[in-house]
Amino acid sequence: MTDYPPELSAEEQNFIFTELKDWSIAHGLAVRPAPSFVQQSQDPAGVLATTAPVTIFPSLFPRRCFEEGLSIQKAYNELYSAIARDEDWLQGIVEELVHVDDFVAKLWQTHLAVKKTGYVQGLSLGLFRSDYMVHEDPSHSNPAPGLKQVEFNTIASSFGGLSSQVSAMHRYLLNLGAYPSSTSAIIKADALKQSQSTLQLAKGLAAGHKAYGESRCKRSLCVLFVVQDPERNVFDQRHLEYALLEEYGVRSFRLPFGKTLAYTALDEDQTLIYTPPHSPSISYEVTTIYFRAGYSPDDYVKEEDWEARLHLEKSRAIKCPSILTQLAGCKKVQQVLATPHSPHLKRFLPDDAVASRLLKTFAPIYPLDKSDAGKEARKLATDPSSSTRYVLKPQREGGGNNIYRKAIPPFLQKLPETQWPAYILMEMIEPPPLKNAIIRNGVLERGGVICELGVYGVCLWRDGSVSGEEGEILENFEAGYLLRTKGDQSEEGGVAAGFGAVDSCCLV
Amino acid sequence: MTDYPPELSAEEQNFIFTELKDWSIAHGLAVRPAPSFVQQSQDPAGVLATTAPVTIFPSLFPRRCFEEGLSIQKAYNELYSAIARDEDWLQGIVEELVHVDDFVAKLWQTHLAVKKTGYVQGLSLGLFRSDYMVHEDPSHSNPAPGLKQVEFNTIASSFGGLSSQVSAMHRYLLNLGAYPSSTSAIIKADALKQSQSTLQLAKGLAAGHKAYGESRCKRSLCVLFVVQDPERNVFDQRHLEYALLEEYGVRSFRLPFGKTLAYTALDEDQTLIYTPPHSPSISYEVTTIYFRAGYSPDDYVKEEDWEARLHLEKSRAIKCPSILTQLAGCKKVQQVLATPHSPHLKRFLPDDAVASRLLKTFAPIYPLDKSDAGKEARKLATDPSSSTRYVLKPQREGGGNNIYRKAIPPFLQKLPETQWPAYILMEMIEPPPLKNAIIRNGVLERGGVICELGVYGVCLWRDGSVSGEEGEILENFEAGYLLRTKGDQSEEGGVAAGFGAVDSCCLV
Repeated sequence: MTDYPPELSAEEQNFIFTELKDWSIAHGLAVRPAPSFVQQSQDPAGVLATTAPVTIFPSLFPRRCFEEGLSIQKAYNELYSAIARDEDWLQGIVEELVHVDDFVAKLWQTHLAVKKTGYVQGLSLGLFRSDYMVHEDPSHSNPAPGLKQVEFNTIASSFGGLSSQVSAMHRYLLNLGAYPSSTSAIIKADALKQSQSTLQLAKGLAAGHKAYGESRCKRSLCVLFVVQDPERNVFDQRHLEYALLEEYGVRSFRLPFGKTLAYTALDEDQTLIYTPPHSPSISYEVTTIYFRAGYSPDDYVKEEDWEARLHLEKSRAIKCPSILTQLAGCKKVQQVLATPHSPHLKRFLPDDAVASRLLKTFAPIYPLDKSDAGKEARKLATDPSSSTRYVLKPQREGGGNNIYRKAIPPFLQKLPETQWPAYILMEMIEPPPLKNAIIRNGVLERGGVICELGVYGVCLWRDGSVSGEEGEILENFEAGYLLRTKGDQSEEGGVAAGFGAVDSCCLV
Repeated sequence: MTDYPPELSAEEQNFIFTELKDWSIAHGLAVRPAPSFVQQSQDPAGVLATTAPVTIFPSLFPRRCFEEGLSIQKAYNELYSAIARDEDWLQGIVEELVHVDDFVAKLWQTHLAVKKTGYVQGLSLGLFRSDYMVHEDPSHSNPAPGLKQVEFNTIASSFGGLSSQVSAMHRYLLNLGAYPSSTSAIIKADALKQSQSTLQLAKGLAAGHKAYGESRCKRSLCVLFVVQDPERNVFDQRHLEYALLEEYGVRSFRLPFGKTLAYTALDEDQTLIYTPPHSPSISYEVTTIYFRAGYSPDDYVKEEDWEARLHLEKSRAIKCPSILTQLAGCKKVQQVLATPHSPHLKRFLPDDAVASRLLKTFAPIYPLDKSDAGKEARKLATDPSSSTRYVLKPQREGGGNNIYRKAIPPFLQKLPETQWPAYILMEMIEPPPLKNAIIRNGVLERGGVICELGVYGVCLWRDGSVSGEEGEILENFEAGYLLRTKGDQSEEGGVAAGFGAVDSCCLV
């Protein structure tokens, strides 16, 4: 497989490129162009679009790993739903972070402020994504590839809308015979996996919407997409909105996070009322708040933004996610679960067989605190000979700023030790060497790549503490996948940030 | 209805505009940007796209006219198929044109050249579009609106791929509640007509493909889209290609007309073989040639282009259209049919009831030749007081260069009389005053508009003269519609040329 994908002749490349750039626009596999490509002054109305960064070929992915990732998603949903419902446990996690992570501290304070007046909505929705890489243990002579989790996203899991389109595009290119005949034993119909992420994520939002029930005052109901503004990755989100309307008849509106207080209000019973600026005479009752903003400190530029988050959290709308669910996704949680010999996984997943399948996907993660594991981690991280097997990650959400391998010791040297606990140390996952070609802004780049598999999951649950009933899971399903591929010289993911491309799996 | 569409508040307009610009890209209702918007140097790979010029509101259209236009399309298909099969009659038409229209002359010569060696394909396919305007006779006190035909297109009838998307977009905006509530009695589900043009035109191509039969030498079969290069309106065509593959499993390739001789060859039995440049080892047998180029003299820049047309016409592939079918669409044919008291319609449509329905859609058309009707026309055209009710149109295909009303006399004065027969004189259609708002390149323009309804038709027939059998029609169906809307200050159609927008019908 080392010669996959094959080199393309100029004519082959030209053909695929032409097909790809037309198909992508015809099917909304698109992004708004970066300012470096099209300046705002050239297109003040923002009508231009371009092909989203995509791979030309579907990347090879071990079938067993793919199937395992999808089949354990329901257990992951259950795990994170259980964590989000365990406020006491989460409090212990948060208390270790509040002094080093302002963002976590603010989220927690917001949660506490809601608690003071009382949560009025017992239902919570999670549109999750568990991200993995294939790991080939370099210490084994004949390594069987396994999945290792990179992170678990509990808020604003993106690219579900584009992922379905990429897998459809690769299938189109196959059906067209666009791939060289030398690939015919590899790229074939039953090897290409269609991601159902658009439909499944929309189904999740529709489930929340339905579970909310009827309006108490006969208002029209809607789902609210709380978004960043501007948003270059808007089509990814739009595909969910369109599916929600077409497949489930559910209305949704997009609300820039910064406009929350301007266009929403709380009724006396904390019902969230949205009044669209374009039709001020009609108000909608919000059943479900889907956050595609608010996940990163960058979204909170002024104090009013925290008020807005509090305002939304207080409301009777179902939050996707709630603050507790968002906090369940912080890296500290992943770390305590994945710290060798951790007792925590068993707490949330009493079924040993299920827990052990998840455990296999954990890469060892250490805290940088004063615990025993923390002390061990500090040694590993500050020693240049061992640090090369690790990555240092900030606990907070939003990606970026990871420190890799030999850069870790000098980084820590400059950082006051009091701030070390804001990071976790994770054993590097060693993915198999792969190649692919990526198109971005019309430029084709070939080379070594690293693939990250994201498995989407939908979970809707009732938190017993609000209603005084038993907590229960109402919906729990795997919701398609994302394959994100980046050049192996870069060590960051995040397609919209300009570091990768959307891909699909060709199972081998 | 004179206050339709209503004025929009800034917020309403902003909302609709945002919805429209996102939906359009997410659904391939797009064009490549004009060079005046994005220079080639900025985007050499041509990956940028923009919303196709569209109307914000569906335009009002009389229900009876709409239904009549769709229901007579099969009769129009039959008529033009009969004309295309009547070589002797067409020859008479062409002989009147060859001295003034080089393009018609060249087409006819090409036909004769094929005839010399003999046509080997008796099947012909037409993807037609009959274009109308609503006419309110100004001489009547209470005019009942009627449809009047602007032209009948027998080659490269465009916008079928985008038209389906525009009607879907207007429906989306309705379902979203994006239109002001004051329009709710007008814009409603049963008034919005969904155009099925993409699927129906693809069905037509698939019918041709299937009727061709199997390959005599077990080659893979394909449909060939013969296209202009570059093509800004590429997504319109792509939607047909995708539907052809997805709905009917039929492969198609795009071949720039100028590359015809480079990539196609004729077998000894005139089978047309296409060898894609990206996979030179695999050859395809072409079942159907779909011309989206070659309809205008501008497509024939060098002598080789005429060789290419001859080469294709000679082949055993089904032509959509053949040269005779293309010639059947020349304005001279429309003129002789629509010349008052013309005997020709009866020749092709012996059924009086059917013929009289078509006749009602003819606007009086006069030749500018030396016949009696021609003499009358010359008087009308050169007199400034009567010329205001007329338009002067070139006989050749491709749009553009129409001369309107009071501009006609001075235009004819400058034109040598020998060239006058290259034009026909047509009574102006007087459409009802309408308003709408058009978005183009992100700029919104409101104002008075003129709408043109195009009804697509598919016809597949066997020309008896090739096989020695009876001629017969194998497929004949109406294939959706196009509403094309332009500002009423401009007097040209043609959205891609920058003079109009794609629209959909809101029946009243």
